[in-house]
Amino acid sequence: MDKSSPLSLFFSAKVRTPLWLATTAALFAATAAAQPLAGAHAELLQLVDKDAPHWQQVSRQIWDFAELGYHETKSSDLLQEQLKAAGFKVQAGVANEPTAFIAGYGEGEPVVAILGEFDALPGLSQQTVPTRDPIRAGAPGHGCGHNLLGAGAALAAVALKQYMDAHHIAGTLRYYGTPAEEGGSGKVYMVRDGAFRDVDVVLHWHPDDSNAVSNGGELAVVSAKFTFHGVAAHAAMAPERGRSALDAAMLMGNGVEFMREHVPSNTRIHYIISKGGVAPNVVPDLAQIDLMARSPFNTTLKDVWEWIQNIAKGATLMTGTTLDVSGIGSDANIVPNDPLATAAQKNLQEVGGYKMNADQQKFALELQKTFKMDNVPSLDTTNQVEPLRKFDPNQPAASTDVGDVSWNVPTIGFLTATFVPGSAAHTWQATAAAGMSIGQQGMVVAAKAIALTGLDLLTDPSLVQAAKDDFKKQTAGRSYYTAIPADQSPPLNYRSE
Amino acid sequence: MDKSSPLSLFFSAKVRTPLWLATTAALFAATAAAQPLAGAHAELLQLVDKDAPHWQQVSRQIWDFAELGYHETKSSDLLQEQLKAAGFKVQAGVANEPTAFIAGYGEGEPVVAILGEFDALPGLSQQTVPTRDPIRAGAPGHGCGHNLLGAGAALAAVALKQYMDAHHIAGTLRYYGTPAEEGGSGKVYMVRDGAFRDVDVVLHWHPDDSNAVSNGGELAVVSAKFTFHGVAAHAAMAPERGRSALDAAMLMGNGVEFMREHVPSNTRIHYIISKGGVAPNVVPDLAQIDLMARSPFNTTLKDVWEWIQNIAKGATLMTGTTLDVSGIGSDANIVPNDPLATAAQKNLQEVGGYKMNADQQKFALELQKTFKMDNVPSLDTTNQVEPLRKFDPNQPAASTDVGDVSWNVPTIGFLTATFVPGSAAHTWQATAAAGMSIGQQGMVVAAKAIALTGLDLLTDPSLVQAAKDDFKKQTAGRSYYTAIPADQSPPLNYRSE
Amino acid sequence: MDKSSPLSLFFSAKVRTPLWLATTAALFAATAAAQPLAGAHAELLQLVDKDAPHWQQVSRQIWDFAELGYHETKSSDLLQEQLKAAGFKVQAGVANEPTAFIAGYGEGEPVVAILGEFDALPGLSQQTVPTRDPIRAGAPGHGCGHNLLGAGAALAAVALKQYMDAHHIAGTLRYYGTPAEEGGSGKVYMVRDGAFRDVDVVLHWHPDDSNAVSNGGELAVVSAKFTFHGVAAHAAMAPERGRSALDAAMLMGNGVEFMREHVPSNTRIHYIISKGGVAPNVVPDLAQIDLMARSPFNTTLKDVWEWIQNIAKGATLMTGTTLDVSGIGSDANIVPNDPLATAAQKNLQEVGGYKMNADQQKFALELQKTFKMDNVPSLDTTNQVEPLRKFDPNQPAASTDVGDVSWNVPTIGFLTATFVPGSAAHTWQATAAAGMSIGQQGMVVAAKAIALTGLDLLTDPSLVQAAKDDFKKQTAGRSYYTAIPADQSPPLNYRSE
Amino acid sequence: MDKSSPLSLFFSAKVRTPLWLATTAALFAATAAAQPLAGAHAELLQLVDKDAPHWQQVSRQIWDFAELGYHETKSSDLLQEQLKAAGFKVQAGVANEPTAFIAGYGEGEPVVAILGEFDALPGLSQQTVPTRDPIRAGAPGHGCGHNLLGAGAALAAVALKQYMDAHHIAGTLRYYGTPAEEGGSGKVYMVRDGAFRDVDVVLHWHPDDSNAVSNGGELAVVSAKFTFHGVAAHAAMAPERGRSALDAAMLMGNGVEFMREHVPSNTRIHYIISKGGVAPNVVPDLAQIDLMARSPFNTTLKDVWEWIQNIAKGATLMTGTTLDVSGIGSDANIVPNDPLATAAQKNLQEVGGYKMNADQQKFALELQKTFKMDNVPSLDTTNQVEPLRKFDPNQPAASTDVGDVSWNVPTIGFLTATFVPGSAAHTWQATAAAGMSIGQQGMVVAAKAIALTGLDLLTDPSLVQAAKDDFKKQTAGRSYYTAIPADQSPPLNYRSE
Repeated sequence: MDKSSPLSLFFSAKVRTPLWLATTAALFAATAAAQPLAGAHAELLQLVDKDAPHWQQVSRQIWDFAELGYHETKSSDLLQEQLKAAGFKVQAGVANEPTAFIAGYGEGEPVVAILGEFDALPGLSQQTVPTRDPIRAGAPGHGCGHNLLGAGAALAAVALKQYMDAHHIAGTLRYYGTPAEEGGSGKVYMVRDGAFRDVDVVLHWHPDDSNAVSNGGELAVVSAKFTFHGVAAHAAMAPERGRSALDAAMLMGNGVEFMREHVPSNTRIHYIISKGGVAPNVVPDLAQIDLMARSPFNTTLKDVWEWIQNIAKGATLMTGTTLDVSGIGSDANIVPNDPLATAAQKNLQEVGGYKMNADQQKFALELQKTFKMDNVPSLDTTNQVEPLRKFDPNQPAASTDVGDVSWNVPTIGFLTATFVPGSAAHTWQATAAAGMSIGQQGMVVAAKAIALTGLDLLTDPSLVQAAKDDFKKQTAGRSYYTAIPADQSPPLNYRSE
Repeated sequence: MDKSSPLSLFFSAKVRTPLWLATTAALFAATAAAQPLAGAHAELLQLVDKDAPHWQQVSRQIWDFAELGYHETKSSDLLQEQLKAAGFKVQAGVANEPTAFIAGYGEGEPVVAILGEFDALPGLSQQTVPTRDPIRAGAPGHGCGHNLLGAGAALAAVALKQYMDAHHIAGTLRYYGTPAEEGGSGKVYMVRDGAFRDVDVVLHWHPDDSNAVSNGGELAVVSAKFTFHGVAAHAAMAPERGRSALDAAMLMGNGVEFMREHVPSNTRIHYIISKGGVAPNVVPDLAQIDLMARSPFNTTLKDVWEWIQNIAKGATLMTGTTLDVSGIGSDANIVPNDPLATAAQKNLQEVGGYKMNADQQKFALELQKTFKMDNVPSLDTTNQVEPLRKFDPNQPAASTDVGDVSWNVPTIGFLTATFVPGSAAHTWQATAAAGMSIGQQGMVVAAKAIALTGLDLLTDPSLVQAAKDDFKKQTAGRSYYTAIPADQSPPLNYRSE
Repeated sequence: MDKSSPLSLFFSAKVRTPLWLATTAALFAATAAAQPLAGAHAELLQLVDKDAPHWQQVSRQIWDFAELGYHETKSSDLLQEQLKAAGFKVQAGVANEPTAFIAGYGEGEPVVAILGEFDALPGLSQQTVPTRDPIRAGAPGHGCGHNLLGAGAALAAVALKQYMDAHHIAGTLRYYGTPAEEGGSGKVYMVRDGAFRDVDVVLHWHPDDSNAVSNGGELAVVSAKFTFHGVAAHAAMAPERGRSALDAAMLMGNGVEFMREHVPSNTRIHYIISKGGVAPNVVPDLAQIDLMARSPFNTTLKDVWEWIQNIAKGATLMTGTTLDVSGIGSDANIVPNDPLATAAQKNLQEVGGYKMNADQQKFALELQKTFKMDNVPSLDTTNQVEPLRKFDPNQPAASTDVGDVSWNVPTIGFLTATFVPGSAAHTWQATAAAGMSIGQQGMVVAAKAIALTGLDLLTDPSLVQAAKDDFKKQTAGRSYYTAIPADQSPPLNYRSE
Repeated sequence: MDKSSPLSLFFSAKVRTPLWLATTAALFAATAAAQPLAGAHAELLQLVDKDAPHWQQVSRQIWDFAELGYHETKSSDLLQEQLKAAGFKVQAGVANEPTAFIAGYGEGEPVVAILGEFDALPGLSQQTVPTRDPIRAGAPGHGCGHNLLGAGAALAAVALKQYMDAHHIAGTLRYYGTPAEEGGSGKVYMVRDGAFRDVDVVLHWHPDDSNAVSNGGELAVVSAKFTFHGVAAHAAMAPERGRSALDAAMLMGNGVEFMREHVPSNTRIHYIISKGGVAPNVVPDLAQIDLMARSPFNTTLKDVWEWIQNIAKGATLMTGTTLDVSGIGSDANIVPNDPLATAAQKNLQEVGGYKMNADQQKFALELQKTFKMDNVPSLDTTNQVEPLRKFDPNQPAASTDVGDVSWNVPTIGFLTATFVPGSAAHTWQATAAAGMSIGQQGMVVAAKAIALTGLDLLTDPSLVQAAKDDFKKQTAGRSYYTAIPADQSPPLNYRSE
């Protein structure tokens, strides 16, 4: 047993079956009763409903914790405890990330994994009221609803486990506690460490303001800090003795601007000058550009990223300065999976949305007044399910480290209406909804859709096979790329640097 | 009588004689005894020597206070008290600057003014030891030796007053307590407020690492913060909705770089990006350039400054942003005065420098080890007086608000060796020397040279006249310019903004 | 009759019916025999086939003329003569363009117009051989196949006129001879002059390498020369006296690069520095940027264009230079029309493509060897018709002044395979095919599709109405925009400037 | 004997005495009569006056030829013939420059060389009239007066030779016919080829608008064409496939602008964009910057030039383009020589200037009206000699390949008033004066001053020694630098490229 690997509990070097399950595996193997689908779904949905109040409360506790990436200690511990209590076996500290964990149940194939996140965002602290009112000004808040994400995924896992138990369903179910999605690329290190290497299908969801299947998409992103080092000099007395790091940063910026015309249309490159000199009468010996580059296509981004590195090097040549590139983050785009999307869409439609009650409506209408939108969406949105969308690289999109998982395992996701329709993520409006009943109701929709799809996968080998075939097709001729250097450890303090 | 003016004590609207002296003027008027020059100088030098220990102690107290610009309350109070005790009448709070003051003695013409400064510099706290060792890390320190400057000027004033007293010399002697020379342009507001309007000649000095007359020179400087305001937007989702303030700052920078070829050779323009965006995934709606422009010629600088304003405006046009320019500082270059320089040189040579004792030498040699210089100057430098230098606009130079005084009144200055030879101003090495006997001895050299020159002016009307004639010649066809807007108040909190 | 208008022959100030038809109108009015559609189409196609050889010869003559924009005198004259000979009445010199003309036949509504172009491109002279071999090096050539365009459109018009004649079809048929499509915006001035004001539907086509209906699309474009004027000076002796026009051009370029991030994704802005100084030892007093901006949306382009003007102004402010903007060209994007597209698709499919004979295949295969392509398309392409494509703003596209017509009249177009599959327009390969049987066969396909669609429009008022209704829908809330100043005359010498 | 060297006629591999003189040397060796200085000077001046009309006519012929650099065939031939006729032995085609030659007379040490130039400037054709009136518009003209330079230097050489002859003065006298001073760096290749390796002192002069000794100065200059190569692409259809050479040129320009702050104040860098793209709808695959860099100090320029190369390389990295640097020109600054300057000043004062006659004055006053100057200098200037100026690196200056000679041999020069006072070089006004009596009279002043100084050198070994000693001092610790690559041949067609 390799003590150095936190995954040793789960994986032996040679066999695919996690070691810790080996002794008990015989108890359940291959005894799944063939319950008719409709009845199975109904029973599973009841299991979700039964446990929903408990996990809604868990979601609220995590909302109260509001911990930033890689420091989600209390949130991670709470989820681990609850999953242990529900009968899962937990391996903590995966991939050198103290708050990453894997909770597993069952044995054998298929291995179905559900992703859970729980990190908050800086500065988005907010009461559960429809006007801007932070609990503590400047403090973190769950403006992306990851409190719901982690708890809802766990609710799905627990309900599914109960059903597996009851019906002796074979196969392995896992919950992946994945830290630091927001800029910390937590899952990338887990992928690198092999945490997903025996998984057959990954299910995930994300809070949103409508109900939909999310089949591929998002933007691949790479980010880093480009720090230039020059030579300080008195800018009035002897500017000729100085070598300006700020000049380098500005010329790098210029270079990036000139590059824009010559990259594919939907590429995004955006940056700030995070350090631009200390005093105007000193030639700056230190300057820094904090930059992100994105593309709907991971492979395109690889080329773009290499070009940007060359621009930075060019800037050093132009200015007699030196460069270091640090804090590299990287999320891949999400690979679509059409058979999984079809199955997911069917299940989401079966679950349906939810109708807001009078109090929720009052809250929502009040909150919508704070939007600066021409056409505020109807509150009925929460009660509808969008038709399955075709992947469109031109749609505005954000980024997530779920992408990196999806380049390694067939992956499908859901979006559910946890935010008041019209809300954008990363806003106080999202924080507010994520802490109260609207968010919690949307979370249950997600848990149900995940549980149903998980059950389909556990009981229908052809669906798993179709997912794998499509994965091969979608990734044919392309290979997974992450800009994160092989020797870079998870940036545990990226939020405080 | 204009009640709004803090100068009302000194000036009536119509008469040139300060009111507060009117009652006592008759006592001394026009009774100056015609003592032969050599004897007069000797006697005056003795008076300086007598009071030197007291004012050296004052300089040390101010060194201990180490107060930043416009907040030199204790330093200013101490100087005021001591000058009052010596028989000067003091008017405090001049030109809306709480720590500015004028201490006056005597009556009638000529009016000879001596300038005193007393502000410290941020971050230069240092023990009086020859290795880097702050009293309090990050705290202010007298790295430009203004503790010596203010005290030494007062020593000159007090000795001269005693001599005037003893010999019934007519004329008016003033000490100007001038705050915030370091970036606060304190004297500019005093000039604007008319504080120098009846002065015939101004004498000043500055700590340095050698003994010399300073006849004109230094660079005119203008500085300001250019703040651009744009429209924030999610940089990945909707960059087309953003208008980037950082783009404006960068284009302003580019514009300035392209400008460099087309301004006179010794123009200096240097800047930092003091605010360059907050997060790379948001189009920055705020960015700031903190910029200084300098020239040996005030008039050239005016054109340069107008051009820079146009560049900033051009950057807003290019980016759909808006601009505000704030925190404008401005120092003029120093107008030379050749007759005064000749007189000053003669006196400085009469005073001579000073020879370091064994302890001072040990300290100095130790401290020189911290210089990164190829040719460290000899310690004998402190005992020498440099020949009168011709003004050379190509010499490296700094800036001072003494320049603004010099565009309005004939002005001459001294540099004396208060720092260990080879020291640069604005360093911990300068702070160290300014707090111990080396600085204090150099200070006495300055006080003596000022006192002698003051006496020459008080007793030789032809010198005053020659100074005035030369002033007219030097400024013919050019007019005083300050970039500080007429309605801008002294930026009392510029150090904390 | 307003003598100043070249359109006076066609339009009276008050009535919609062209005056020149008024006397003969009674002969045909409203006597159209209701021939069954299938028979009608078959007969009309025969009429096209009958006259095809003649017009193929005309196309070859224009190919031999190879005249540049606004100087297509021989080409225009030839087409006018032939149309007159076929019974059309011709008005020449429309819209102050000497080579523009309108050929009309028939009377009353609907007014159906067919567009014909005939300008060549500089430098694309080429023999009808499959390897690069200019007739005259550097001379113009029909690299966009407009010789086919103009002749094919006339073939359609003449055949349709014969059918109208034979069957007493009411309505007005027009052929618009439109010069200088390649960068001269010839149609924009015709639109401005009202030449299309009574037209109900416009039909057009363009040579291509496959057969398809072209429903909307292309990029709106604006182009202009930005000329900066500065002050020359010896760059070594007195650069401070110079004001660099080149600096202005470079800063305008920089400004444009910074702008790219903040315009919609499919905007295109591209430029050259057409004048960048004469000698490196002189500060340039003249510099010029020749710039084009494009967008799938005319309205977006308007905003972009205004921004670019501001960037140019900003560059003058930054450099103390002045600016003039000249040679403004402007083409709008093409407004789609779905009912027309459906009708056009049906007809194109009815016509079908054509199969190359052995000689053509030999030529084509030889020519395809000169392509640097990974996947050269099959020669069967000429025999296929593409399914109706949905408008996609993200598709690569070029620009045409047909766009300006389409913002004023419902418009539909065809592309037919006149070039060897895989050819790009504006190449010698295109010139070669346009001068021989491949191009001429593709031209007949276009003529037939136009003729059939024209007949549909002349005989089916509901199709005309549907086209008009859809036009209203497609342009609702948006208005036609051209960047060409109202007082700018057609730039008759734009090719020689 | 190395047959490959055009200098073989002059130099053996081992002995310093030119071979061609070896046979006749004995005739004159060491028999110089010791004529008293005053008489010697008077006699020599008469010799100059005697031959002046002839050489003035030669100067006019060369003015008529007006040949550009490296193509001065007729001018060079004429001078060679005349010098041969006067008894000089001529070696043509020196240093692979067809129009370079060395004319020699005498034997042994010292070797005194006089420089002659004869190239014209493009576009400066002008009649000898005081208003702009070209002989042939656009044709070359002697706007720098090199027709006078070459003829005047020959006049000095011939007169001195006659004096040497008459008085049996030992030593070697040479005339160097040096082509392509204007941008062709003709002398640099001659220096490189060893043409000056046995010379003791070099004398030269240059037409100007006043009479003065020129002791050092001028700016070292390096120039080159930076050509960037990218990848063309349709700028609207596929800009992402293009790599823009223009972007590289613009970023190189930006880099140079940012560099300006960090080079010594009197550095000059100036450039044009000589190729900036062909059509705005094509991503430019070719762009070119034509750049010159200058400094009063050759050594500074070396660093600057290396930096500029790095900027160009940085621009390629930033844009994915490639670079070639071609057409490198390089002139060094002129090393001062104080003993020679003192001797030269004495002689120039002895010669004095000349007073314009009435016709010349009329012409001059008329021509001065075309100046745009505030203070036009007096016509008396031609009759005055300026006091010896101290070298001032801050004075505006131009560049010359005399500099390269001066880094290898002690060198001194004269400026004489050949142009109407107030004229700038490289103007039609200079061309006009260089073709008529004003220029021709100034030329004789130069010839006399050179002849006298040459005689001093030939007869006073201590002056030669002092010149050599000072040369060592002035160049101590610095070494000659040329940016011209060792394998670059003279760019014989640089004017037509």
